[in-house]
Amino acid sequence: MPLGVCYYPEHWPAERWAIDARMMRERGLEWVRIGEFAWSLLEPRPGVYSTDWLDQALTTLHSAGLKVVLGTPTATPPAWLTAREPSLLRVDSSGRRLSHGGRRHACTTNPRYRKLSRTITTMLAERYGDHPGVAAWQIDNELGNHGSARCYCPTCRHAWQQWLCSTFGSLAALNQAWGTTFWSQTYSDWEQIPLPSDPVGGGHNPALLLAYRRWASLQQVEFCRQQVEIIHAHAPQRPVLTNIAPGDDEIDWFDLAASVDVIAWDNYPHGFPSWSAVSLFHDHIRGLKRQPFWVMEQQPGPINWTPTNPPVPPGQVRLWTYQDAAHGADNVLFFRWRACRIAQEQYHSGLLNHAAQPTRGAAEAAQVAQEWQAHGAPQAAPRHVALLIDYADLWAQQLDPHAQGWSYWKLVQSIYGSLARHGIGVDVIRRGSDLSGYSLVVAVAPMLSNPSEASQWRDWVAAGGTLVATPRTFTKDQHNCWSDQPLPAGLTDLFGAEVAEWTALAPSEPWQAAWDAAHPFDVPLWAEVLQPTLANPIVRYTSGYATGSPAVTACTYGKGMSVLIGAYPAPELLAGLWPRLLPNAVALPPGIEHITLDDGHLWLNHSDNHTTVAVPGSWRDRLSGHHYTQEVALEPRAIVWLHQTQDGV
Amino acid sequence: MPLGVCYYPEHWPAERWAIDARMMRERGLEWVRIGEFAWSLLEPRPGVYSTDWLDQALTTLHSAGLKVVLGTPTATPPAWLTAREPSLLRVDSSGRRLSHGGRRHACTTNPRYRKLSRTITTMLAERYGDHPGVAAWQIDNELGNHGSARCYCPTCRHAWQQWLCSTFGSLAALNQAWGTTFWSQTYSDWEQIPLPSDPVGGGHNPALLLAYRRWASLQQVEFCRQQVEIIHAHAPQRPVLTNIAPGDDEIDWFDLAASVDVIAWDNYPHGFPSWSAVSLFHDHIRGLKRQPFWVMEQQPGPINWTPTNPPVPPGQVRLWTYQDAAHGADNVLFFRWRACRIAQEQYHSGLLNHAAQPTRGAAEAAQVAQEWQAHGAPQAAPRHVALLIDYADLWAQQLDPHAQGWSYWKLVQSIYGSLARHGIGVDVIRRGSDLSGYSLVVAVAPMLSNPSEASQWRDWVAAGGTLVATPRTFTKDQHNCWSDQPLPAGLTDLFGAEVAEWTALAPSEPWQAAWDAAHPFDVPLWAEVLQPTLANPIVRYTSGYATGSPAVTACTYGKGMSVLIGAYPAPELLAGLWPRLLPNAVALPPGIEHITLDDGHLWLNHSDNHTTVAVPGSWRDRLSGHHYTQEVALEPRAIVWLHQTQDGV
Amino acid sequence: MPLGVCYYPEHWPAERWAIDARMMRERGLEWVRIGEFAWSLLEPRPGVYSTDWLDQALTTLHSAGLKVVLGTPTATPPAWLTAREPSLLRVDSSGRRLSHGGRRHACTTNPRYRKLSRTITTMLAERYGDHPGVAAWQIDNELGNHGSARCYCPTCRHAWQQWLCSTFGSLAALNQAWGTTFWSQTYSDWEQIPLPSDPVGGGHNPALLLAYRRWASLQQVEFCRQQVEIIHAHAPQRPVLTNIAPGDDEIDWFDLAASVDVIAWDNYPHGFPSWSAVSLFHDHIRGLKRQPFWVMEQQPGPINWTPTNPPVPPGQVRLWTYQDAAHGADNVLFFRWRACRIAQEQYHSGLLNHAAQPTRGAAEAAQVAQEWQAHGAPQAAPRHVALLIDYADLWAQQLDPHAQGWSYWKLVQSIYGSLARHGIGVDVIRRGSDLSGYSLVVAVAPMLSNPSEASQWRDWVAAGGTLVATPRTFTKDQHNCWSDQPLPAGLTDLFGAEVAEWTALAPSEPWQAAWDAAHPFDVPLWAEVLQPTLANPIVRYTSGYATGSPAVTACTYGKGMSVLIGAYPAPELLAGLWPRLLPNAVALPPGIEHITLDDGHLWLNHSDNHTTVAVPGSWRDRLSGHHYTQEVALEPRAIVWLHQTQDGV
Repeated sequence: MPLGVCYYPEHWPAERWAIDARMMRERGLEWVRIGEFAWSLLEPRPGVYSTDWLDQALTTLHSAGLKVVLGTPTATPPAWLTAREPSLLRVDSSGRRLSHGGRRHACTTNPRYRKLSRTITTMLAERYGDHPGVAAWQIDNELGNHGSARCYCPTCRHAWQQWLCSTFGSLAALNQAWGTTFWSQTYSDWEQIPLPSDPVGGGHNPALLLAYRRWASLQQVEFCRQQVEIIHAHAPQRPVLTNIAPGDDEIDWFDLAASVDVIAWDNYPHGFPSWSAVSLFHDHIRGLKRQPFWVMEQQPGPINWTPTNPPVPPGQVRLWTYQDAAHGADNVLFFRWRACRIAQEQYHSGLLNHAAQPTRGAAEAAQVAQEWQAHGAPQAAPRHVALLIDYADLWAQQLDPHAQGWSYWKLVQSIYGSLARHGIGVDVIRRGSDLSGYSLVVAVAPMLSNPSEASQWRDWVAAGGTLVATPRTFTKDQHNCWSDQPLPAGLTDLFGAEVAEWTALAPSEPWQAAWDAAHPFDVPLWAEVLQPTLANPIVRYTSGYATGSPAVTACTYGKGMSVLIGAYPAPELLAGLWPRLLPNAVALPPGIEHITLDDGHLWLNHSDNHTTVAVPGSWRDRLSGHHYTQEVALEPRAIVWLHQTQDGV
Repeated sequence: MPLGVCYYPEHWPAERWAIDARMMRERGLEWVRIGEFAWSLLEPRPGVYSTDWLDQALTTLHSAGLKVVLGTPTATPPAWLTAREPSLLRVDSSGRRLSHGGRRHACTTNPRYRKLSRTITTMLAERYGDHPGVAAWQIDNELGNHGSARCYCPTCRHAWQQWLCSTFGSLAALNQAWGTTFWSQTYSDWEQIPLPSDPVGGGHNPALLLAYRRWASLQQVEFCRQQVEIIHAHAPQRPVLTNIAPGDDEIDWFDLAASVDVIAWDNYPHGFPSWSAVSLFHDHIRGLKRQPFWVMEQQPGPINWTPTNPPVPPGQVRLWTYQDAAHGADNVLFFRWRACRIAQEQYHSGLLNHAAQPTRGAAEAAQVAQEWQAHGAPQAAPRHVALLIDYADLWAQQLDPHAQGWSYWKLVQSIYGSLARHGIGVDVIRRGSDLSGYSLVVAVAPMLSNPSEASQWRDWVAAGGTLVATPRTFTKDQHNCWSDQPLPAGLTDLFGAEVAEWTALAPSEPWQAAWDAAHPFDVPLWAEVLQPTLANPIVRYTSGYATGSPAVTACTYGKGMSVLIGAYPAPELLAGLWPRLLPNAVALPPGIEHITLDDGHLWLNHSDNHTTVAVPGSWRDRLSGHHYTQEVALEPRAIVWLHQTQDGV
Repeated sequence: MPLGVCYYPEHWPAERWAIDARMMRERGLEWVRIGEFAWSLLEPRPGVYSTDWLDQALTTLHSAGLKVVLGTPTATPPAWLTAREPSLLRVDSSGRRLSHGGRRHACTTNPRYRKLSRTITTMLAERYGDHPGVAAWQIDNELGNHGSARCYCPTCRHAWQQWLCSTFGSLAALNQAWGTTFWSQTYSDWEQIPLPSDPVGGGHNPALLLAYRRWASLQQVEFCRQQVEIIHAHAPQRPVLTNIAPGDDEIDWFDLAASVDVIAWDNYPHGFPSWSAVSLFHDHIRGLKRQPFWVMEQQPGPINWTPTNPPVPPGQVRLWTYQDAAHGADNVLFFRWRACRIAQEQYHSGLLNHAAQPTRGAAEAAQVAQEWQAHGAPQAAPRHVALLIDYADLWAQQLDPHAQGWSYWKLVQSIYGSLARHGIGVDVIRRGSDLSGYSLVVAVAPMLSNPSEASQWRDWVAAGGTLVATPRTFTKDQHNCWSDQPLPAGLTDLFGAEVAEWTALAPSEPWQAAWDAAHPFDVPLWAEVLQPTLANPIVRYTSGYATGSPAVTACTYGKGMSVLIGAYPAPELLAGLWPRLLPNAVALPPGIEHITLDDGHLWLNHSDNHTTVAVPGSWRDRLSGHHYTQEVALEPRAIVWLHQTQDGV
């Protein structure tokens, strides 16, 4: 598996380019991404292109043996452009129009900006589409970053109203779907429909808010798709990618990923709360297209944009790079080659420091490159457990968490993290995906009900699957209006239970529940009191007025089983659940990640502790050559890559 | 005493109306409020009225035996209206004009909006004024909610300047009253006078800020009054109400209550910090007109707008409803009948859930209805203790608390709560009210001095009353400028003491004081060192440089007594005070409320604990029929309604 | 040394002026500042001056024997002016134009406002320039207060772009200096360059931000300078001052001080975190011109603008006044004479209270006046230790602290505070100042490198000086772009070491270091791992992966020594350093300040504790006349002013 790096030739003297290229190759790097912010250099005056510098950079890199990912520069239109056409600048949620000086300042919904972005992309594609050194393309950069996926400019207002018109067909249909009878919201003209940034008393209608979020996400996807089309036309055989920044969940990445050949993401583990949240993200990205992905930017050392920007200990960069591969990365590029002297990212480290001295990150990248040349990169075995997620559920719950502290992503992380700490490999896929091949599926807070999906689930469970669903399952329709049926709406037969009542729980006043009464645990955030019809209560509440009422039920259905979790899934609840449903679930020591490979096991120690894990049988570590029997000792940040041996050989 | 419910026929299919009406009657409900947000339905196009649906709803409800409160819909002008006349939309304190999509988006000061609101009200009044089913009217809904009582639109700017002109008569008078010599603020044209939303360096003049708050409150009162006039003209004999939301203290409710026949409020106890704060609010509302009131909206279960939205245990809804009655409610309507499928309030519970299944709240409402049909509702005996409050004092203290954490309402709650925990019934009345009938009156931080009130107090104390005053008494004039007299200005003779010096106290550095030196307690927030002339020190400071100085003084004056509290009244200070002044003050267990009735006693247990209280004599509980001698055991959320028996009969 | 007071004759009846003047003189006050906000009174209508009141006030004060400081009123243009010319009002960082009603609402960059300010200043200077009672002048008041030093109005935008043009000469030079290649920021027209208030995605270029801060500061200095010129022309021999408010560090006070004859500041110790932070500020102000200064406003009791506004104990005002003198104040005026009845500052105390009764502050001021008439004020001996600071370093670090909690001022306070707690007198001077006369100099986070200063340092150390530098030394150039040399850039020879790597440290995860391994201490915020070439490691890290690496190095260089502090200087680190470098460093008890005088010692007890300090030899306290041998007992807030005696006489 190849490694690479992100490079900005325009930030350094041209004399330096060949030296840098040589140093990259010396460290085993094969790919280099360039060009994604260089619009001002490529088109210094309206319609006048200047590409000599890029020709020279490509020649230098290519002749050094590097493959180039060329980025389209549409995240950073030039100052002369926005000065001439300020209506292309986006407007933030407080109503202020952005200025030149940062990035992502244009409105990607604006037809004129889309035309300009197609023009610059066409220029690049025509010129470099068949360049032998340009082996892949990146569309834009971190679409949606800095909140840019939601614009509130006059052009967006009009486009949004037009989209509603084409989506709903009639105002009557929209008024009905959104329940605008409430508070005299009824619209009699499309132009009356506000944007969410318009201030109102008592908040906006959540149906309007969810529709706006869907619309805004689709704009980004369409903006990307238009560029992909151009590259495809001029650069055959070159994969087209775009790179996602975690946290920019204003875009439905399932949709965005569908618009490109390969999806990529930018992995800065210091932006995550835990190692398992990084693993979850890898698996989420792999699930977007259900195929391998790229890490387009990999953290190489300390960074500059987290609240605390802490240090990176020795071994950490290598460990992160193995984690990338084990979760399905096909390529890993470090960001960035050399720490930047200028402008906004001066405190971000690189494989070289500002003075061009190689850092610890450079040494570890080189070590990984050597190891993977010797052994290939580790390949995970197929997973048989899946989490079902959906961006519309996320957005609807962000719009009204109802319970203080409720977070869709935290719930996903909590469930994923518990599975990871039990050594279970997980796919993270979109609600509505084909479930064949899975033995257990967890539907995470699937709030917006879908009758055809309910049928799919019934069939899949009847055929032998185990379906687990959490609080807030199937409570609303797709427009974000509540069901008038008992909850979970349309699924009470499958679960053999209904929700008798539900409530938020104040953080300081959790309820309690238990698998067995002697070991109660806290239930934070949310509680649903379940009323079984056919199901068995397997967890009951043990505090307050709900004492004795079912908190989790399990029900056989056909050849399979359905589990309805009414109590917010605390770690203790989940730790009791997996061993009952998954025979291979084993609680691992803190910080230890275990990945089952096609031909062995990968053990990663994400902690600062020395730990030992049990590995029944005899094994050999590909990397160190050490032999192990029954157990493996793991140093902090250790990587142990076991394959089975015969008689200890 | 009747019960009722709030209902939105427009949210449900017409086929459902008769079923709902029947179910209401089955639970003993007699009143139903409708219509208050239905402007879009009533006038779907400019000047075109559509009232068939309302005719049908009224007929259905009336023929089921329900009495209707009909609301005017002026909290929610239609989209076609605000789209045609955007200058009717209010402007918030950050200068942004509101949009359609929520509620309370119109500027109620705007003459054009006032005209439109009179027109729609006239239409309703003419059509339904003598409708046999319409037994009462509600003006608008929660005037001032969502910060809507303070608008900063150009129309308001002009109206505010005009009001200042008519109030002060001349700029010379205004400049003098406000002390505009300070920082060259002197105005030479009425149009120079800013709104408080205009940003300034170093803050606005507090005299201007207080004047603006007075003006803004008066606008709401006038808006309401204009509608009341119309209803009175067309609907004789029907009481006209308006409903207040607690927390919306931008309106002087004494003024607002004076504009209607009966005042109502919306009681969501989860929005209050304690049960006694709810009791205080009831008593505040009862004091607005010194007559019984309505609870127009009573929380029926969990709600959706508090930070945590916690659960509601069994018995709680019944307990709240008894608390309503015991504090003077004449009618209690639950909000709402059925949980709403659409728009902003989907997470708010109702007496039915979304699926039309009756909730625990419905059962408890029905139980109360049965009990009150059997026994009537409990009626409290007249109170002999009053708190004096005033909105101008509140506003002036909000504008400059000076001490970190100082809150006028918290001070009121602290004093009221201490009285409630001693079983003392309290009236909460407006400064300047007639004090006859009271034996003890507490003036709560009466900051803005009033010489004629000082005379009233002197006379009333001389005649035998006991007056207690807190820190910050009579420090400023009515324009919010400081007195040039020793403090409390104009009252040093009555209290036989003056304030030698005063200071705020940082939260982390309270002073200490004591009734007796062996038991010091913390004095937070504020300390005034008192200098007695004739008064006796009864509490002294026991820490810091003020050690030994008087913190509270008492002085006989004529046949009465005056008590000046210089130290912020901590619970320990107040707990020592009441038994010295009120022979019937008895410390009760936490969570226990005691209400003296005309013919017995009502005990309410607001806590989660089992508690016993002493009840000398022999008693019978009207509700359970149980007999008690000397003591009563109170379960969590218990209601015990005692009347005295002869020989245990 | 004289004392005085700030007075507002316009706030009180003219009949009161003579009484107040007499009362001032009775308390030994000699100076009175007036007039600085009175523009509306001086020019009530455009071009029409009204100065009779000021004539009368000056006559009254002068004939009572008081010397007047007359202020120019340009902090508060009249309402008629800003109403006629609203474009003179400044615009805040959120884009809102300020309004009349507070102060500092004008844009001091605006050429028209500068002209108007020169006109009113000329009027005053012509009329009162040779008035016998006007003994000094104050320009404006607290320039920059309320964030007014940074305006974002259209006039400023143009002026800023023009300044860039004249400063950089060409866009090519600006683009090069700022590194605008990054993110396509390249400017092709001066008018494209944004203001920092323009919203951007991902933040502004730090080079642009720093340039704006420099420009904005220069505007204030120029505004002040224009007035000074006028006063100098008309009021010969009268010193011209301006008064600084601590915290308004948007202005480079070194530059501002250079524009006036004497610099003054407004000393409200309750606005500081500690007594030593007040001492630091005095020393900073003294260092602005390296000459004595005035305290133009001295806190006289409780104030109204801190978060908590706590009380002021007896003796505190006297103690503060001695601290003023001991740090170089030439004159101290209390703010204000009488607590104000009107407008924004009613809760601020004065030497009289609102009712004109003298406060404790008045008594203490009178006591100090008596003492200084008897003994003169204490005069500190010259200091031999200096801190080097710079506003450009401050601004650059404010713009990107990188480490959570990093604060330039806190670092200065930490180093100064440690020196003060060791009894070391300190000068605080500007980077680049002449260092002769100092034995030890601490360069505090001199982030922006300066090659000529590096040469100066080398020469000074070679000649025998001891230079101490902190983390972040010489990392960037003057445009706020990173060096491409090993760090500290251009100084690795002087320190005999370079920075191998650096990192921020999360507050919850400090590293550890130690002078000796047995006594490790926490290193918060920042760590640089040092690589000595010639230097000796004197502190090493004792935790994490850096264990054993140098944290502080010392290197002989010529006749002197250089110390590079790589670890953020925790108190323990500094407490170990001073005794190694300064033979007279002695740890003092908490709260005790020791000032070496020309002819003795001043001891100030800033704490609430009774403390004893060692004073080898025999001494007499000038104030009490007490004799001491070997030790002195210090009561809370004690002032002991020792001069040596022969044989205890």
